[in-house]
Amino acid sequence: MALLIKNGNIVTATDSYVADILCEDGKIAAIGHDLSAPVADEVVDATGHYVFPGFIDPHVHIYLPFMGTFAKDDYNTASRAALVGGTTTLIEMCCPSREEDPLEAFDLWLGKAQGISSCDYTFHMGVSRFDDNTEQKLRTIVERGIASFKVFLAYKGFLGVNDDELCKTLKLAQELGVIVTAHCENETLIAERQQQLLAEGKTGPEWHEPSRPVQVEAEGVHHLMAFAEATGAHVYVVHTSCEPAIRAAEEAKMRGVNVWVETVIPYLTLDSTYAEQGDFEGAKYVMSPPIRAVEHQNCLWNALRSRSISTVATDHAPFDFVGQKEMGRDDFTKIPNGLPSIEDRVNLLYTYGVKRDKIDLHTFVDAASTQAAKLFGLFPRKGTIALGSDADLVVYDPMYRGTIAASKHHMATDYNPYEGWPIEGRPSLVTLRGNVQVRDGQFIGKDGIGEFLKRDCTH
Amino acid sequence: MALLIKNGNIVTATDSYVADILCEDGKIAAIGHDLSAPVADEVVDATGHYVFPGFIDPHVHIYLPFMGTFAKDDYNTASRAALVGGTTTLIEMCCPSREEDPLEAFDLWLGKAQGISSCDYTFHMGVSRFDDNTEQKLRTIVERGIASFKVFLAYKGFLGVNDDELCKTLKLAQELGVIVTAHCENETLIAERQQQLLAEGKTGPEWHEPSRPVQVEAEGVHHLMAFAEATGAHVYVVHTSCEPAIRAAEEAKMRGVNVWVETVIPYLTLDSTYAEQGDFEGAKYVMSPPIRAVEHQNCLWNALRSRSISTVATDHAPFDFVGQKEMGRDDFTKIPNGLPSIEDRVNLLYTYGVKRDKIDLHTFVDAASTQAAKLFGLFPRKGTIALGSDADLVVYDPMYRGTIAASKHHMATDYNPYEGWPIEGRPSLVTLRGNVQVRDGQFIGKDGIGEFLKRDCTH
Amino acid sequence: MALLIKNGNIVTATDSYVADILCEDGKIAAIGHDLSAPVADEVVDATGHYVFPGFIDPHVHIYLPFMGTFAKDDYNTASRAALVGGTTTLIEMCCPSREEDPLEAFDLWLGKAQGISSCDYTFHMGVSRFDDNTEQKLRTIVERGIASFKVFLAYKGFLGVNDDELCKTLKLAQELGVIVTAHCENETLIAERQQQLLAEGKTGPEWHEPSRPVQVEAEGVHHLMAFAEATGAHVYVVHTSCEPAIRAAEEAKMRGVNVWVETVIPYLTLDSTYAEQGDFEGAKYVMSPPIRAVEHQNCLWNALRSRSISTVATDHAPFDFVGQKEMGRDDFTKIPNGLPSIEDRVNLLYTYGVKRDKIDLHTFVDAASTQAAKLFGLFPRKGTIALGSDADLVVYDPMYRGTIAASKHHMATDYNPYEGWPIEGRPSLVTLRGNVQVRDGQFIGKDGIGEFLKRDCTH
Amino acid sequence: MALLIKNGNIVTATDSYVADILCEDGKIAAIGHDLSAPVADEVVDATGHYVFPGFIDPHVHIYLPFMGTFAKDDYNTASRAALVGGTTTLIEMCCPSREEDPLEAFDLWLGKAQGISSCDYTFHMGVSRFDDNTEQKLRTIVERGIASFKVFLAYKGFLGVNDDELCKTLKLAQELGVIVTAHCENETLIAERQQQLLAEGKTGPEWHEPSRPVQVEAEGVHHLMAFAEATGAHVYVVHTSCEPAIRAAEEAKMRGVNVWVETVIPYLTLDSTYAEQGDFEGAKYVMSPPIRAVEHQNCLWNALRSRSISTVATDHAPFDFVGQKEMGRDDFTKIPNGLPSIEDRVNLLYTYGVKRDKIDLHTFVDAASTQAAKLFGLFPRKGTIALGSDADLVVYDPMYRGTIAASKHHMATDYNPYEGWPIEGRPSLVTLRGNVQVRDGQFIGKDGIGEFLKRDCTH
Repeated sequence: MALLIKNGNIVTATDSYVADILCEDGKIAAIGHDLSAPVADEVVDATGHYVFPGFIDPHVHIYLPFMGTFAKDDYNTASRAALVGGTTTLIEMCCPSREEDPLEAFDLWLGKAQGISSCDYTFHMGVSRFDDNTEQKLRTIVERGIASFKVFLAYKGFLGVNDDELCKTLKLAQELGVIVTAHCENETLIAERQQQLLAEGKTGPEWHEPSRPVQVEAEGVHHLMAFAEATGAHVYVVHTSCEPAIRAAEEAKMRGVNVWVETVIPYLTLDSTYAEQGDFEGAKYVMSPPIRAVEHQNCLWNALRSRSISTVATDHAPFDFVGQKEMGRDDFTKIPNGLPSIEDRVNLLYTYGVKRDKIDLHTFVDAASTQAAKLFGLFPRKGTIALGSDADLVVYDPMYRGTIAASKHHMATDYNPYEGWPIEGRPSLVTLRGNVQVRDGQFIGKDGIGEFLKRDCTH
Repeated sequence: MALLIKNGNIVTATDSYVADILCEDGKIAAIGHDLSAPVADEVVDATGHYVFPGFIDPHVHIYLPFMGTFAKDDYNTASRAALVGGTTTLIEMCCPSREEDPLEAFDLWLGKAQGISSCDYTFHMGVSRFDDNTEQKLRTIVERGIASFKVFLAYKGFLGVNDDELCKTLKLAQELGVIVTAHCENETLIAERQQQLLAEGKTGPEWHEPSRPVQVEAEGVHHLMAFAEATGAHVYVVHTSCEPAIRAAEEAKMRGVNVWVETVIPYLTLDSTYAEQGDFEGAKYVMSPPIRAVEHQNCLWNALRSRSISTVATDHAPFDFVGQKEMGRDDFTKIPNGLPSIEDRVNLLYTYGVKRDKIDLHTFVDAASTQAAKLFGLFPRKGTIALGSDADLVVYDPMYRGTIAASKHHMATDYNPYEGWPIEGRPSLVTLRGNVQVRDGQFIGKDGIGEFLKRDCTH
Repeated sequence: MALLIKNGNIVTATDSYVADILCEDGKIAAIGHDLSAPVADEVVDATGHYVFPGFIDPHVHIYLPFMGTFAKDDYNTASRAALVGGTTTLIEMCCPSREEDPLEAFDLWLGKAQGISSCDYTFHMGVSRFDDNTEQKLRTIVERGIASFKVFLAYKGFLGVNDDELCKTLKLAQELGVIVTAHCENETLIAERQQQLLAEGKTGPEWHEPSRPVQVEAEGVHHLMAFAEATGAHVYVVHTSCEPAIRAAEEAKMRGVNVWVETVIPYLTLDSTYAEQGDFEGAKYVMSPPIRAVEHQNCLWNALRSRSISTVATDHAPFDFVGQKEMGRDDFTKIPNGLPSIEDRVNLLYTYGVKRDKIDLHTFVDAASTQAAKLFGLFPRKGTIALGSDADLVVYDPMYRGTIAASKHHMATDYNPYEGWPIEGRPSLVTLRGNVQVRDGQFIGKDGIGEFLKRDCTH
Repeated sequence: MALLIKNGNIVTATDSYVADILCEDGKIAAIGHDLSAPVADEVVDATGHYVFPGFIDPHVHIYLPFMGTFAKDDYNTASRAALVGGTTTLIEMCCPSREEDPLEAFDLWLGKAQGISSCDYTFHMGVSRFDDNTEQKLRTIVERGIASFKVFLAYKGFLGVNDDELCKTLKLAQELGVIVTAHCENETLIAERQQQLLAEGKTGPEWHEPSRPVQVEAEGVHHLMAFAEATGAHVYVVHTSCEPAIRAAEEAKMRGVNVWVETVIPYLTLDSTYAEQGDFEGAKYVMSPPIRAVEHQNCLWNALRSRSISTVATDHAPFDFVGQKEMGRDDFTKIPNGLPSIEDRVNLLYTYGVKRDKIDLHTFVDAASTQAAKLFGLFPRKGTIALGSDADLVVYDPMYRGTIAASKHHMATDYNPYEGWPIEGRPSLVTLRGNVQVRDGQFIGKDGIGEFLKRDCTH
């Protein structure tokens, strides 16, 4: 089957030009002027539209047993939502607890996606303990196509690793050429603060941010940098929310540490006042690290523009307001942490980044697609529009005007944190390996055709 | 006329893939598999070779009356040397003194290149004074296709501007969408140090670096940052040599200042011990800012890798050892400042950067070509390999092994600062708008076909 | 004549103990237990009171032709106000314009004080130009007992020096062992901002702070640091208002630069909201650098506590609201810059610093007295309570409770910026060289007995 | 018994003046001119000499079971050596292992000193674990007069605490007003480096420094700062050796963290080349953190001068070269860590600090005596020369010239790391509470009269 997309403005992390793209056998077969398609196949006129490489969300949670409940989406809802929003590849966090066996966990997580996901996917393999058996199992998992680990410096005793485990994980990763993604917050300091606040009767969602102040996150990053420097490992700081955390990473880069920084769309678009809304509305905006004061948001945009921040992900972790967020009505530490944003990331970044002159189109593509592909072993299969790459394409309509609403979204949650926000652009066509999965905001494709992406190590 | 380059590994700032490139009418007409050329035209087999976009050197001096003499190269020698080394576009500094009229100077500089240069070229327009007549003349120059200015914070009274002039230049640039490149050293501090050192009998070239310590450069950058922040202007710090200067720029980026940083190949490959060689050999390595202690070199590589440094230029400023550098035998302040490196920049960056694992191929292309094109209004005509771009291509042989020697080089100087250095790769073919100008280290093309590039403003 | 102060809690920058102090011939003649006074002389019971060394205000303006008017106080009012507030020594800025002769200016300023001042005094000698005649005149002035210079990086063309003049001033100062105090703001940037704001119709006093943003001040400090490093001179940054300025100085200290930092009482106690008050009330709080946002105030307290800030002065520059501040009703750039605070500095620092646990008693004495004495060549004559030191003593009542009011103050201005502020302590007795000048908030001493203090160079 | 010291130049952290000091009943009874002593008591003529307050060494080890051996000194040798060098008060680290009971350990350590020490002493109470029983025992120890704790971030599993224990220790300290001193190095990173180096056959003492790089220390300080900020505790970073560690503390001070910094005399006077000497000589210079490259030494002097560093201690930890240091001949990780310097600290700081113009006399006294007294609850009993303070006095001869030699020293070790170093000054008389213990380099006093100093909490 062949698909021909004509006259689109092709935009990659580097380039911008008008041409036709011919997709055959799931790949980009030709890029040129005046290409013609074999008889009977689909031709799309992309005049006046951008054509972007399929976007990649390198930080999502779908199967997520957490804080006594489960995240709301499954791969059916999450992958449809992703595609509608222009995201054609997900990297999910596979997060076994310390008690679980890594290989069994990997198979469990994989099983939730296989045959169900409508977009492509892979996993960061969570390392929540490192004992004598761990190394061999991680080697096996890497052989099965996983090129990145995930560690938590927070959530100690449950997901978090101690210093020895961190060191061993980084050394193994370095040996294998695997990059290590890390959640950087100091667990003990958070526990201490939570206790203090609750003891003072500060139980509402507005106290979530003060319970995890910026220095707690910066301390986590600083700690990771010291370990990355000592081991030479490649590391990736997930969901960076604030200036001191970015500075800790930048300082390390200057010393030659191999570190890359991710932020997530909520930190770029929301600020701490959202969690301070009354009637427990604030709970909708509880995630960790917390959404910060607006000066940090400005700093994140600056760092994104200067490419100190490599990627913009979501940390999609969807919980209903009713029944789930409400578990923490009397105690903010019991509010399930997380926001749903897998569907809206790309449109928000385009509208509030590109259209507001905070970043240019190339930085937009680079941060939302290309860098993730490069850092996590998916390039050049994903993350660009080039001969031989997968035909994951987003024909994007910059003239579209609309509004975000939970009533229309494809995610499973009962609310959308961006309810009512205007959007100035959206995908008019989304293809996954040449298959048209989305048209004008509706999933019209084939369920379950998403593939598990075996990845190569990156260094 | 058409040229077909087959089976090369095409490498851009983002992409890497094997394909054929068809060049017609000076442009890239097609990129694809199994392309065929019209009859009778040239076909080049690039199997096993890289194909890079023509490299751009955004900081060179050719016509340069300076320190009582003139730089050695003219456009004939300089452009041939550039091409042999893979550089297809030059941006020369047009540096009128305070006494010269800007428009007349522009015409003077342009006249030195037109019909003579064998590669394409444009100019940064030097602003060395800013009086009532200046604004209109600069507007005219911008209309004639110049999209960047150059200011000196050093060389006061000769090339340098004072704070008021700096402010006016930045404001005009901001209005016009022109970027301002700046030489950042504090003039007064240098004069003071020179005087001290000479008074102490410290007259040799080894005292050049101590006469312009890193803090003098950092002060210049810090100063520029304050002015860029106040005016919103886009600025570009030329020839950055040391860690504190980079930090001053990085600090500003975090605040949202529109600043980009250039380093030059000598700072990445040489260190201060070179200027300390006896028998006045050190004079060969006298340039400003000076070549620094080796720890700054390490920092520059780190900053280049993390993309804090956007571009790698040369600051090519060629003076003979005999008769020119020798003018400062008894007084280092009289040694004409500058090194010839226009021919060797690309090979040095490939050999000592890419091959030594300090940067990857994409960073190499980005820093030596793409970023310069984007920052200075040459993109997408130059700086990439894409449909419709100029067919400036470098077929690069990574198997070549050779040695740098003044006896073989195409530059006019009587020495090469890299004499005897091994090189692990070189261009086997260089095209300018589809014309083959270089083959295997020899200029075999047409003299004088270089064009003046009219540029668009960039913001 | 002898004065015996019994049983006070003597507090110096280092020590704290209860003892008697015997003052004879203007000096501290004995400190001990159970001292007895010669017959017929005064004995003061200081039980339950602190005894502090006379406070020193190292940054005041009294005779000040400025912005088309004159500061309100003369030495009669200013010195009485100082003494009532516990300040026994003033260092006034002698600020000739570029046109004035330094020696004549020095004599002019001196003449305003001699025989009139009721407290001791000396001057920082302003250097507003440096030409061929300047050096000899400055040498003469130093011989006459002046051990400090003052330069302005702001107010160019009027009071400010250019880079060459700055360099020469610092070199001469270094040779003579004189410390150079400096007003650090970049003039050009301020002029630019003022123009922009006025052009946008932003004419009220609330625009004064935005016209001189923190980076303008930080740039000034950074600039000075580079010059101090190059010359080795000892420098003192006056009226530091914000975090980036402090950081610039701290960074330099780490490199070995000889720099000390002053802040002034308004920055420690007020914030930018004061200048935002309606009805032109904000004009009362217009000074330069401007009073900053509250986060800078917090940073100043932290820096004072850690002794990064050496001294707390006033920058006393008194202008009436009616007739003077009002000159800028339609244009904030015409509001005479300055606040009156010479009378209230010590009580404010005690109340809002010591009593609020921000600094301890020793830091209070050190910052408001001892450091100024040491830095400016007055120690050990002034700044401590030790055998042989001048008997400048403040018996301080920590039980006093009162309120600041223009109706009661001794300064000449028609308003007090601290109107209505509670004070928790005040001097119950103030002596100048053994003479009781103040009792319980009233000047009851001898007018005109203040002496010009000839000072020794400090390094 | 009374002692009268006449005409000395009394120097405290603040003051400098010539006077007589009368000591009675172990206290300073009078300071004045022309004091006369009661009949039959000793009168010392201090003309031309300094009189300093007795120096305090706030970081020494005497009873130290460590790395399979015991430190060489006992209280007899250590206290005599201290006194000869002008140190009249020691604060020893009481360092129980995780297995030991804190109260029993305290009694054990105390028992080693009581009746044996010839100078006064107290202890920092080591907290090496924090379980349910710990709190009550620490409260008891504080009631017995201990006002400071000590934690190790290094030596995990033996002396080190984990994050929870650190947090609990700091919270208890904060409640009690006790300051927490901390050894800041990340244990895991050191173990990792040691293993790497040994695996590469790098076994000599020159590899000790590379096994504990500066970032490992900076990470420790940064970590502590985060915990101090969260708990509000007062903390004191012991033996700071390098610029990044100082920066981490300075950064925290700016945010309001209550932190003070100590360095030790070896870091100020030695550099990493000492440990690189052949024939295993380097082992004499193995301590932790390691002695650093000379640029860090310069930075320490700058930080001491600007008072970023509060105190200069020794970390005296004496091991013989023969039989002890030699344990690590084949493996640098087995070299007992530590240098003997209790006897030479004051003379080295005077000679290489004051006499070399790096610090002034007041900073010398402040850093080597007064600050330790203030931070650790000994002031004003110790640390100054004031009425009522203990008569611990050092009459110091600035004209003395001599040389350090193990053959003459009073410490028990078989070598002196400063062998052959010239000294330009030494105590000619040292008193402890009015008792003359030392004259001209010889202990001539009473053994065992040192007292355990019960201390008050400091905040």
